[in-house]
Amino acid sequence: MRKRNIANMSNPSGQPFNPMTTPNDRVADAAIDPVYLNRWSPRSFNDSPITETELKAILEAARWAPSAMNAQPWRFAYTLRGDSAWAAIHGGLVPGNQLWAGKAAALVVIASYTKLTLPTGGDPVPNASHAFDAGAAWAFLALNATQQGWFTHAMGGFDAAAIAAAVNLPADTVVHAVVAIGKQGPADVLPDALQAREKPSPRHPLSALAFHGRF
Amino acid sequence: MRKRNIANMSNPSGQPFNPMTTPNDRVADAAIDPVYLNRWSPRSFNDSPITETELKAILEAARWAPSAMNAQPWRFAYTLRGDSAWAAIHGGLVPGNQLWAGKAAALVVIASYTKLTLPTGGDPVPNASHAFDAGAAWAFLALNATQQGWFTHAMGGFDAAAIAAAVNLPADTVVHAVVAIGKQGPADVLPDALQAREKPSPRHPLSALAFHGRF
Repeated sequence: MRKRNIANMSNPSGQPFNPMTTPNDRVADAAIDPVYLNRWSPRSFNDSPITETELKAILEAARWAPSAMNAQPWRFAYTLRGDSAWAAIHGGLVPGNQLWAGKAAALVVIASYTKLTLPTGGDPVPNASHAFDAGAAWAFLALNATQQGWFTHAMGGFDAAAIAAAVNLPADTVVHAVVAIGKQGPADVLPDALQAREKPSPRHPLSALAFHGRF
Repeated sequence: MRKRNIANMSNPSGQPFNPMTTPNDRVADAAIDPVYLNRWSPRSFNDSPITETELKAILEAARWAPSAMNAQPWRFAYTLRGDSAWAAIHGGLVPGNQLWAGKAAALVVIASYTKLTLPTGGDPVPNASHAFDAGAAWAFLALNATQQGWFTHAMGGFDAAAIAAAVNLPADTVVHAVVAIGKQGPADVLPDALQAREKPSPRHPLSALAFHGRF
């Protein structure tokens, strides 16, 4: 885990500065809500179920995400483990993801419309921001899930044609990710190679990401 | 403002259900953190300045966003109003955005790397998730800014070549948005057409966005 020298950081909150150490050992370089650190992507789920009401409460935050021209391009198709849609969506994941995602409580396919209708009307035009905006909705979903006591793990490893067929993907939409949602299980049920990765991932320091004026 | 019938909603938190009515009159259909509703994108900023430390505390949340293979493709170039970088970045916005964004405290250019290096090494390969993941980082930034007392407004209206030149955009990166950050100002300083839009935007109902099994 990368830890930075925070001794000289000032404190934007006005409270006595404490690095936001969380149970998962991530450390923030500023006083941010612990939810950003507590959200991470395990692979071990303990096969607890989720109700449709609970899942909709997780999705609720996503619809409040910002989007270019408020187009709200994001769309979600979900399956609860054991329902009639599960096999096709789960089966559309790459085998390495099928392995662990089978114990998740729900799988949510996140897609977005690649076009939008301008306020002036007319035919839909390409929406350059559809993927970026769908990512914002995913982020709201993930944080809200954390706040509601759930874990999420977004997967880019899926067979796009299989997922498209499974969810009857509409024209002019693309699938960005399939998200596993569930309660965390023990690491030791995972294959050895995945056990070693079953911990919150580190991050680059902000100094490698943010530049004053010019890159 | 679209309001839905919530009388039959159950309550995922276990607390007595109250629609999460916020000062801005948005209503959620489930008990989510009010931050999702309180975040919106005004155009009137009151020209309060921001310090670099405050801005970095806003950006801090963004680096904890999830990304495919933890590639962290997001990059930020920022300018504080009045510094030497301001004119070129502000000048890269379309005129309609220059008009109001000139009173923001900071402008943050959000870009992302379109390629990533696989864990197995070798030359970088296309990262299909770079825009989606950059959008997640933007969402964390925006929510954290709200929590820190700031407003954000992401703009897709910019001259891509002008912004690229202004920030010395690296190869294999693209710009997704320029984000204005500041303290909210009064609506009545905006041109009439923008005054009418100076309020939190509504959202589609979840029933139009989320589907069980198949779209």
